Amino acid sequence: MKTNPGRFFEDYRVGEVIRHAVPRTLSGGERALYHALYPARHALYSSDAFARACGLPASPLDDLIAFHTVFGKTVPDISLNAVANLGYAEGRWLAPVYPGDTIRSESEVIGVKENSNGQSGNVYVRTRGLNQHGEAVLEYVRWVMVRKRRVEAPAPPAVVPELRKVVAAQDLVVPQGLDFSAYDFALAGERHRWGDYEIGETIDHVDGVTIEEAEHMLATRLWQNTAKVHFDATFRPDGRRLIYGGHVISLARALSFNGLANAQMLVALNAGAHANPCFAGDTVRAWSEVLDKAETAAPGVGALRLRLVAAKAGAAPFALKGADGKYLPEVLLDLDVWALIPR
Amino acid sequence: MKTNPGRFFEDYRVGEVIRHAVPRTLSGGERALYHALYPARHALYSSDAFARACGLPASPLDDLIAFHTVFGKTVPDISLNAVANLGYAEGRWLAPVYPGDTIRSESEVIGVKENSNGQSGNVYVRTRGLNQHGEAVLEYVRWVMVRKRRVEAPAPPAVVPELRKVVAAQDLVVPQGLDFSAYDFALAGERHRWGDYEIGETIDHVDGVTIEEAEHMLATRLWQNTAKVHFDATFRPDGRRLIYGGHVISLARALSFNGLANAQMLVALNAGAHANPCFAGDTVRAWSEVLDKAETAAPGVGALRLRLVAAKAGAAPFALKGADGKYLPEVLLDLDVWALIPR
Amino acid sequence: MKTNPGRFFEDYRVGEVIRHAVPRTLSGGERALYHALYPARHALYSSDAFARACGLPASPLDDLIAFHTVFGKTVPDISLNAVANLGYAEGRWLAPVYPGDTIRSESEVIGVKENSNGQSGNVYVRTRGLNQHGEAVLEYVRWVMVRKRRVEAPAPPAVVPELRKVVAAQDLVVPQGLDFSAYDFALAGERHRWGDYEIGETIDHVDGVTIEEAEHMLATRLWQNTAKVHFDATFRPDGRRLIYGGHVISLARALSFNGLANAQMLVALNAGAHANPCFAGDTVRAWSEVLDKAETAAPGVGALRLRLVAAKAGAAPFALKGADGKYLPEVLLDLDVWALIPR
Repeated sequence: MKTNPGRFFEDYRVGEVIRHAVPRTLSGGERALYHALYPARHALYSSDAFARACGLPASPLDDLIAFHTVFGKTVPDISLNAVANLGYAEGRWLAPVYPGDTIRSESEVIGVKENSNGQSGNVYVRTRGLNQHGEAVLEYVRWVMVRKRRVEAPAPPAVVPELRKVVAAQDLVVPQGLDFSAYDFALAGERHRWGDYEIGETIDHVDGVTIEEAEHMLATRLWQNTAKVHFDATFRPDGRRLIYGGHVISLARALSFNGLANAQMLVALNAGAHANPCFAGDTVRAWSEVLDKAETAAPGVGALRLRLVAAKAGAAPFALKGADGKYLPEVLLDLDVWALIPR
Repeated sequence: MKTNPGRFFEDYRVGEVIRHAVPRTLSGGERALYHALYPARHALYSSDAFARACGLPASPLDDLIAFHTVFGKTVPDISLNAVANLGYAEGRWLAPVYPGDTIRSESEVIGVKENSNGQSGNVYVRTRGLNQHGEAVLEYVRWVMVRKRRVEAPAPPAVVPELRKVVAAQDLVVPQGLDFSAYDFALAGERHRWGDYEIGETIDHVDGVTIEEAEHMLATRLWQNTAKVHFDATFRPDGRRLIYGGHVISLARALSFNGLANAQMLVALNAGAHANPCFAGDTVRAWSEVLDKAETAAPGVGALRLRLVAAKAGAAPFALKGADGKYLPEVLLDLDVWALIPR
Repeated sequence: MKTNPGRFFEDYRVGEVIRHAVPRTLSGGERALYHALYPARHALYSSDAFARACGLPASPLDDLIAFHTVFGKTVPDISLNAVANLGYAEGRWLAPVYPGDTIRSESEVIGVKENSNGQSGNVYVRTRGLNQHGEAVLEYVRWVMVRKRRVEAPAPPAVVPELRKVVAAQDLVVPQGLDFSAYDFALAGERHRWGDYEIGETIDHVDGVTIEEAEHMLATRLWQNTAKVHFDATFRPDGRRLIYGGHVISLARALSFNGLANAQMLVALNAGAHANPCFAGDTVRAWSEVLDKAETAAPGVGALRLRLVAAKAGAAPFALKGADGKYLPEVLLDLDVWALIPR
């Protein structure tokens, strides 16, 4: 057979490094599409002049363009036979990506653990995105539940990596040259700086977006993510196309501009859960909670640790989980990130 | 509260200059999306080679890309609490915008007048788009009806600016170097030149486009226009998303290629009315009327003053207003522009 | 009348060369949109670094971007009054198209033959796409059935060109410098090379895509193809918009990555039939058959002649025609191409 059946649980070996296919050169085209697909307005990613005033050589591509590009390449090798995307940890953006850069991905298998039912198992990978100079631009750990090809295949020795719950503030990588000391708050759209946010503070981002089928498919294809379930209405028994979880991440992040316009750069992905599936017709809103604050060595640059939640219209404000400890049915995404903001 | 509630009528002071947020660097990506979103075919905005043969350094971005980009930035400060977009006047394109240019906007409040009901008032602003060199690329006056925050807020002294009904031909700014004396009519798509159009002539542009939700949202987001009513199906009681009026402007302009292929450059926006709301599923057609003609000092370059009307399929040809002087319900847009065309 | 009514059968003269309007400069924007509109993943068209390792100066734009751009320009002159798109022959890609290139088209009328009913006739054109240096990048023969303006117009002498059924292997143009001797199969996504494919072999490309109205209209507009039937829901009595056949070609080609990831470059279009109309809501799948194989003089470069078939979900695997010799109703496209693949 010439087509790719994807890997099954028993195909993964701890320590193996998988070089993912189809490197991708990004351009201003991807940026324009990103702005068309999401209500993205963070000034650092919109204006070369603004970015230069912040010490960067030009406006980078949105941090989530980097994430989606790196992630999309892993799908044929990691998640084609995945039953569930279980979590993220230890994610860090290591260098900005600019138009003209060529991105490829590789993943190291860092853990495998068969489920007790013998039908599937969890696979842990540490994925790295690399640019044309071989420099890492992003790394993160992701674990997924993958089907076994043959139920009778023997279980490998279980290896479960120890993962930090949060990236420590001192491990955040601030892009070289970044300097917020002459930051133009008027051009950025809001006056709130690092000192104006308090741990425990919650922010309702107010705006909402109703999703169309064409939009999430355009976005998901743009990242060369080929999972059938996003594109083929005949694939699920209910005839619905499941929206790529990353589409909801980008929507939520873009909506968070309203209240967090100065939280310009994502530098860490501490954790993330796709709490419930999202479908076309859903109206997505977002809220944030300030989980922690830290200083950095870069001039004028502070960091906020933020919980970013996407929920369907009609969800109770700031409600996340029920009394049973499970996510409420309206909650779509629970993301935990570090972002850089002027002090 | 960290989110932007928008300004209310009593927040505007005549003479105040508002610097709008989020400058934007444009690229070939925005051009490609513009061609995907609208049936745009004017050769000057499609081909570097054609533009160079007309004396420009390269093909500029569509004049309406400049307009939408400048306009989109004003929304959070001017029209977030607007009840209605009442009119445009004294609009002039002052310099072409090229890929790589960074655009920002600022608006001067030039008039305020409370309505007799005390619930709202009209705000007049003169908006300027500026490039990275600080050069103005576009200016126009726009007035909107804005809600008051508190009905009991005292009415400011009424100031209503005197606005010219039409930009005078001698005030049109022809881009430096523009030269239509070697214009290639075959490559441009039609043979009709300035002398072939007569004042009073009407042109049915024949083609029609049925609008989808995904398309108008992609377009409106691309201009970083964030008015909820365009994106959130839960916002209006009827569950419909109102289409950004500028989307209809661009559709009508692009459709006008068929019959006005040589009316290459927009140089003035004399007036404009969004006559009726437009919704997904509507099929939009366009017609034009030649209102005036003028010569310019540039070689081979003439100007046509055009009424450009968008109407829904099924509208009577060239019908604009009823016996009561009001726009017919099928009419969506009534625009009054100057365009440059080879003589 | 100022608008273009299109040409009718009696307007074509054998030997006439029609220069088509609206040249187009392509950029990274068109590439990004192509990746958003189709699940395109061939590495040579995705990564500058990969393309350079194959001897090219940079990653070209997808061969079908070149095809659609050239084709779209011919619509106002060739197929505005076409009843049917009957066939393609002798198509060859002659040079890669890169971001920054400006493409125009011209067509020579090489045959006319009135139908026996006297209402219409077939018109044969040889179309060439040219870049800004005047170099041909693509040529193909296409024939369409065109309505007569006046049934009583006299029939011109019938001229039916002799067309080769297949482009001979020695006539394939391999881009200058192309060298697959250091080809990276892991980065390309599959390990199968020229020697792994056998004549007669069939490949089910497995994946499927359900089409939305917004997507096919964005695509078709991007190529400045203006045929009303694709955009105006009021045009056909059934209220459906017919999907541009080229959209199905690009979908099928992109889907063929899964099983033919290394069939990187299209170099010839031997024949093609749009077997049945395609509408929004259809789920499109694809399969291929290896029709022939050939070597080329370029290092490491072989050629496969492939039948590429698009069919709606539910079609029997590898079924093309019924006992009556007609295409099955689920079949959308039957394309015959040569592609270059590492040996």
